[in-house]
Amino acid sequence: MSPNNQFKDFNEDSIIKFLQQKFSSSTAKALVGIGDDTAVIKTGKSYLLLTKDLLIENTHFIFKVHPPYLLGRKCLNVNLSDIAAMGGKPNYCLIGLGLSNKVDWAWLQEFFAGVESATREFGLELVGGDLSRSSTVMISVTIVGKSKYPVLRSGAKPGDLIYVSGHLGEAAWGLKLLKKGYSLGKNKEIDYFIHRFLDPSPNLKLGQQLVRQNFISAMIDLSDGLSTDLRRLCQVSHCGAELWVDQLPSSPLVRKFTSRPRDLTLHGGEDYHLLFTVPASREAVFTRWQKKNKYQLFCCGRIIEKNEIYLVWPTGRREVLRPRGFRHFA
Amino acid sequence: MSPNNQFKDFNEDSIIKFLQQKFSSSTAKALVGIGDDTAVIKTGKSYLLLTKDLLIENTHFIFKVHPPYLLGRKCLNVNLSDIAAMGGKPNYCLIGLGLSNKVDWAWLQEFFAGVESATREFGLELVGGDLSRSSTVMISVTIVGKSKYPVLRSGAKPGDLIYVSGHLGEAAWGLKLLKKGYSLGKNKEIDYFIHRFLDPSPNLKLGQQLVRQNFISAMIDLSDGLSTDLRRLCQVSHCGAELWVDQLPSSPLVRKFTSRPRDLTLHGGEDYHLLFTVPASREAVFTRWQKKNKYQLFCCGRIIEKNEIYLVWPTGRREVLRPRGFRHFA
Repeated sequence: MSPNNQFKDFNEDSIIKFLQQKFSSSTAKALVGIGDDTAVIKTGKSYLLLTKDLLIENTHFIFKVHPPYLLGRKCLNVNLSDIAAMGGKPNYCLIGLGLSNKVDWAWLQEFFAGVESATREFGLELVGGDLSRSSTVMISVTIVGKSKYPVLRSGAKPGDLIYVSGHLGEAAWGLKLLKKGYSLGKNKEIDYFIHRFLDPSPNLKLGQQLVRQNFISAMIDLSDGLSTDLRRLCQVSHCGAELWVDQLPSSPLVRKFTSRPRDLTLHGGEDYHLLFTVPASREAVFTRWQKKNKYQLFCCGRIIEKNEIYLVWPTGRREVLRPRGFRHFA
Repeated sequence: MSPNNQFKDFNEDSIIKFLQQKFSSSTAKALVGIGDDTAVIKTGKSYLLLTKDLLIENTHFIFKVHPPYLLGRKCLNVNLSDIAAMGGKPNYCLIGLGLSNKVDWAWLQEFFAGVESATREFGLELVGGDLSRSSTVMISVTIVGKSKYPVLRSGAKPGDLIYVSGHLGEAAWGLKLLKKGYSLGKNKEIDYFIHRFLDPSPNLKLGQQLVRQNFISAMIDLSDGLSTDLRRLCQVSHCGAELWVDQLPSSPLVRKFTSRPRDLTLHGGEDYHLLFTVPASREAVFTRWQKKNKYQLFCCGRIIEKNEIYLVWPTGRREVLRPRGFRHFA
């Protein structure tokens, strides 16, 4: 989903609510339809996962800035991140491409080389799509995956611990650098941040392992920022959360460059780490498993009953955290 | 697929060839990937069908001309037509929407009322999608269906008879009227044609029956015009065809208004009828079945060995038919 989409007289969340009401029915065969990372459909012993994400020129990427190879990877990887958030395995993808007259054969070849590298890396097949003229470039990707035990956003319970699967704010810092006019290939540190934005990586293996080990109660991928995505998880779980300010997984690299890393940590999007909740009863075994594995997982808060999200300081000071998602280029 | 897409230094057909080479592999689990009406994937005793079509403002529709209710129906129905061309049954759909600042809540409600009417009419569930800002409106629909016996484009053999499931040219005539400035609600005859363009209907039942009765060897839906779509079918079937000029299913209604109905019959797109081939051995039983049913099916040619498409006059005169697909608004 795109971040904080405010339109003329509606926003993304209001339209999703409207659609959930309009299109949910008692005869629905889909276990989860509109409003989770993917749709989840029971098929035999397993579940079919369906996800669709748009990447639109000047909203999600700038044609001249985003190298086509990395754009080809990213349009798949942001969808794969949704599959990861279900603990799923990807199988097939379809790509719809609206192409403007800026696109030439060289661009297309690079773009599909990027697509190919992601399909190889994550083991999925490109099986179809559509191609059309368009005034601006737009990419629509659908991924079909499966999961034996999909983890929804709606399973969090008061007392569950909140984990994030990596440092936050690096992609948003990369975007800031791009907006300031920095580009790839001149400085290693700058390249690192820009790459975190242009070429994110889905946490498919981690998602699958967390689900297989039955560690977690709810999961979402961090596409639009911690404050926005944690709120989404809490809303469908009918609960709230407290985030511990001294435990927030701010990127130490970002901290070197900015005096206000917390804003990027809380509201910067596009990191595509996983946010998940671990029931207190699974905490001990989860911690033992975590020590044996190489994943960087940060415990940074707890689910609470009250439908509100708080920042909590070590001193005990509490402050309501308002969602303030990421706004890309738009 | 969009019609005759000619870009800077490539076209739709050249990129499809490139992608088929790049993404086909000996380990592919998809029975059919890129290049048929839908992707076809074996799952247990049945086949999963996956289709994706884009509708882009100013390429496929004009925002002010296309009522949002009919656009909501059309974006599903053109995809359902691909499912029909496989003899399939639709199950689920996802919709990606890029929305410009022209879109307001009233437009969106009308659009989704149209989506709902098509999901009800054809028995499928909207299970997900994506929403984003965009400089122009763009719609990406994915439909997931299934078929026990999917019919590919590639099964036609020399001697097979060519059938079309309805009169051709009416949608293209409707588009012409729109381009000339005519609009809905002023004249019944004009409304009929404009509706044929704005609100096409997929031939799902016919497709399913043809497949269940085992009548046909190949099928494609007529989205881009007879000359273009028959050529596509012939190319993957490694054959050619002759079309009998006196048997072409020109619309008698269109004939009333234009002195050159044949151009619209051969090259006008968007009628969304089915084009299919019947082996000579099935012709007798097919004809008996057809007499019992109410479908308007027109036999208008024959598959031949030579890789060329000919128009054949009753006098015996033959002329090579060049593809000249439909160009929408672009």
